[in-house]
Amino acid sequence: MNRSDRLSERLRRGELLQPDCPSRDVLQHVTSRWGVLLLVVLMGAPARQALRFSELRRSIGGISEKMLSQTLKWLESDGLLERRQLDTVPPHVEYRLTALGRQVGRRVQGLADWIETSMPAIMEARASRAKADAPTGRVHRL
Amino acid sequence: MNRSDRLSERLRRGELLQPDCPSRDVLQHVTSRWGVLLLVVLMGAPARQALRFSELRRSIGGISEKMLSQTLKWLESDGLLERRQLDTVPPHVEYRLTALGRQVGRRVQGLADWIETSMPAIMEARASRAKADAPTGRVHRL
Repeated sequence: MNRSDRLSERLRRGELLQPDCPSRDVLQHVTSRWGVLLLVVLMGAPARQALRFSELRRSIGGISEKMLSQTLKWLESDGLLERRQLDTVPPHVEYRLTALGRQVGRRVQGLADWIETSMPAIMEARASRAKADAPTGRVHRL
Repeated sequence: MNRSDRLSERLRRGELLQPDCPSRDVLQHVTSRWGVLLLVVLMGAPARQALRFSELRRSIGGISEKMLSQTLKWLESDGLLERRQLDTVPPHVEYRLTALGRQVGRRVQGLADWIETSMPAIMEARASRAKADAPTGRVHRL
């Protein structure tokens, strides 16, 4: 298989374990800290409603305007998000997930839900590990 | 509700949209570029087999020793991964997912599979966007 055949094979299905596969960029966009949270907020909008920039920013604690803009651009360029400019004064821009975006959104939301509900088990694992790693009393007595 | 009540409520279920919730660290660990790929590789090991450091490194194209070590430590500290040192010469260390790790691994694998199989649709969205954004001929004629 020559290089061009390999590329077209890869475009039929991405290969995340290959360092030069473009699927790694998409993974980066949807699993970036703000990408995940943006997808979760857009999935949570009632009746697939579009949300304004200011609403998105308020919903995601700690996100800056710059990072929100960047993340919206990534998801839009991957075809996951639709951006619409409204003819209002002042002008508003709103965003909603595309059908493709809702597909990935469901998976990201499932992962986010798992993390939220599993936090007690994870905190317990962390605490028992911290205990096991703690220096023994003997060290302090020396 | 005072601060301590809010914290205990949060530990019963994380709140990813809150900037100070510890669930954000876990999200960061499992959705970091290398966290996702490490989970995918460990989920793919036949019969829940443990994998050695060197096997993990070979399986994940482009990962450095340093980043692999860091990511393994994160997942281990969250209780998602078990590390076992073998009494061999030279000594080997092997890793396998815990039950908790397999739960999150299934979700991350679902997301990774979606990205790999959806690459044709995503590349098409990118191409049509690039075309729409391209400067018109008029600009070049000026």
